[in-house]
Amino acid sequence: MAQVYDRVALIGLGLIASSLFWAMKRGGLAGEVTGYARSDETRATAREIGLCDRVCDSAAEAVKGADLVVLCVPVGVMGAVAAEIAPHLAPGATVTDVGSVKADVIAQVGPHLPEGVHFIPAHPLAGTEHSGPRSGFAELFDNRWCLLVPVEGTDKDAIARLRALWEGAGANVEEMDAEHHDLVLAVTSHAPHLIAYTMVGVADDLRRVTDSEVIKYSAAGFRDFTRIAASDPTMWRDVFLTNKDATLEILGRFTEELFALQRAIRTGDGDHLHAYFTRTRAIRRGIIEAGQDTDAPDFGRGARKS
Amino acid sequence: MAQVYDRVALIGLGLIASSLFWAMKRGGLAGEVTGYARSDETRATAREIGLCDRVCDSAAEAVKGADLVVLCVPVGVMGAVAAEIAPHLAPGATVTDVGSVKADVIAQVGPHLPEGVHFIPAHPLAGTEHSGPRSGFAELFDNRWCLLVPVEGTDKDAIARLRALWEGAGANVEEMDAEHHDLVLAVTSHAPHLIAYTMVGVADDLRRVTDSEVIKYSAAGFRDFTRIAASDPTMWRDVFLTNKDATLEILGRFTEELFALQRAIRTGDGDHLHAYFTRTRAIRRGIIEAGQDTDAPDFGRGARKS
Ligand SMILES: NC(=O)c1ccc[n+]([C@@H]2O[C@H](COP(=O)([O-])OP(=O)(O)OC[C@H]3O[C@@H](n4cnc5c(N)ncnc54)[C@H](OP(=O)(O)O)[C@@H]3O)[C@@H](O)[C@H]2O)c1
Ligand SMILES: NC(=O)c1ccc[n+]([C@@H]2O[C@H](COP(=O)([O-])OP(=O)(O)OC[C@H]3O[C@@H](n4cnc5c(N)ncnc54)[C@H](OP(=O)(O)O)[C@@H]3O)[C@@H](O)[C@H]2O)c1
Repeated sequence: MAQVYDRVALIGLGLIASSLFWAMKRGGLAGEVTGYARSDETRATAREIGLCDRVCDSAAEAVKGADLVVLCVPVGVMGAVAAEIAPHLAPGATVTDVGSVKADVIAQVGPHLPEGVHFIPAHPLAGTEHSGPRSGFAELFDNRWCLLVPVEGTDKDAIARLRALWEGAGANVEEMDAEHHDLVLAVTSHAPHLIAYTMVGVADDLRRVTDSEVIKYSAAGFRDFTRIAASDPTMWRDVFLTNKDATLEILGRFTEELFALQRAIRTGDGDHLHAYFTRTRAIRRGIIEAGQDTDAPDFGRGARKS
Repeated sequence: MAQVYDRVALIGLGLIASSLFWAMKRGGLAGEVTGYARSDETRATAREIGLCDRVCDSAAEAVKGADLVVLCVPVGVMGAVAAEIAPHLAPGATVTDVGSVKADVIAQVGPHLPEGVHFIPAHPLAGTEHSGPRSGFAELFDNRWCLLVPVEGTDKDAIARLRALWEGAGANVEEMDAEHHDLVLAVTSHAPHLIAYTMVGVADDLRRVTDSEVIKYSAAGFRDFTRIAASDPTMWRDVFLTNKDATLEILGRFTEELFALQRAIRTGDGDHLHAYFTRTRAIRRGIIEAGQDTDAPDFGRGARKS
């Protein structure tokens, strides 16, 4: 694959940044890649495992001369990081991010960037419950979506180049506007995460009743929830606080539906339950047909020996 | 492995029955295995794929001469099936079930069984979102729990023999009382399933807003929910209706906690959210240490090519 950028700077060196780094290396997509993270510890780890060609001790140093800067920090600090790097950006450079929320990040970052720098927000729809510099792998974005959310009037060539990078990293790229992105993600990711966190918290409260049995006997449903609820607390705090309106709207609808199902259980209305559960089956089929998941029974976990 | 029963009858030929059949064959645990399911179609499929040594056209015929009868039907029909087979049971036979709810099944089945038949309720904590005679596989129970819920005064030898069968099928066996079982399962399985069904239903309602994007961009959290919410509607309707009290109690606590988190989002209380999410991480670690799930990133799904 051809090189897309001469110099890429990664700000933040966690799951997404490290996966992007390994994907860029795999595809030969970037000349030199510099990196910066807040803590000495993460920078030391990055140096130890060869994450980035050069790890810098300041964000300013990392972005110097870069033609692409990728903000890979929690969405709550995107504005502060943008303010820090703004004076050091090369003219004509592209700044992008990988944050899970878009409208708020645009409002935070946009005002800091100088004239002549292209700002193209993005969001790769790929992740795991792990975080930090050691958690990344080159294949994370393979066959997943990456949404570009360009603000009005953005240079078309700059967008095409960023698209080429993400495609080179294995992703399928589409464009979307920020408000729409934030609503779709509230449904498909943000609300489900809050719900999983809540259910795991309830189970944790019940420990005194059920002792360690909640863990010992954790069945399929709950086990999946615990994986989701093991995701990084800082990242998710920031997601909920910055995508507040859409998340609360979806949670409001969720509560309404849940109450209707609880009422059906209480009154013994089996037909209502059966009809509801039959309807939700169809959406699963859609996801498998869309190639976003596998239909293998239990992902072979039932068959796993420990 | 040694043969545990001479003649086993499986009533209901879905996921659990077919998995148990293949596990018994793998381990040489049973002499002859007979089977019966309600519909002609399922019985024809069973004959076609060699599920059971002999597929019978009535439950009465299937249980004749069996020293073990396993009820593998939805929990809502356990009582009706017990009434049907009761007159045909061999003296000294053991009747067990695999239902996901125990107190209600005991109340349904117990009264029908004649003196001299051992009734030992059970619940293997293993499953997938698939159902029907073709969905089973011999490894389903490997290294999973199977809970025995013997009623008071049950013959110790009969319990030991059923335990040997499940251990031979790969499971780790423990005993528990019925009420406790139903509470633990409400937390670890029943409430999470209802929540997943609800969230997928909400997403489905929103299709007019987001079109097929909910499916197309389904991210990690939601994708897992859709898998859970693809489970069999009849089975789950029956579970909720027969484990009503425990499920509603857990859902009540869930709603309380969810409201507290929604309030934290609304008021911007990031510390509350961060503390909550940090606490839920620990329970995941416990599950991995207990060997009930794997820590592999995204189960390799991120890396999967379709
Ligand atoms: N994880 C996912 O599933 C996923 C998926 C798609 C998008 N995203 C988005 O990707 C972004 C990064 O997530 P991640 O999962 O890669 O997180 P992560 O593994 O926790 O890494 C975050 C990185 O940001 C650094 N950082 C935090 N605050 C900083 C600051 N003020 N200045 C400089 N660096 C700072 C951290 O440095 P230290 O290590 O020194 O603290 C760390 O290297 C987030 O915006 C998230 O919403 C995540
Ligand atoms: N699936 C899981 O994850 C899981 C896990 C643990 C325990 N369980 C429990 O295991 C039991 C069976 O579940 P499953 O997943 O194996 O279900 P399944 O795949 O849907 O199979 C159910 C079987 O029961 C038969 N059946 C239904 N009503 C009947 C009746 N009145 N008389 C005779 N047969 C009847 C069905 O016959 P037809 O095909 O002819 O309709 C079918 O063969 C349930 O009690 C469930 O709670 C399930």
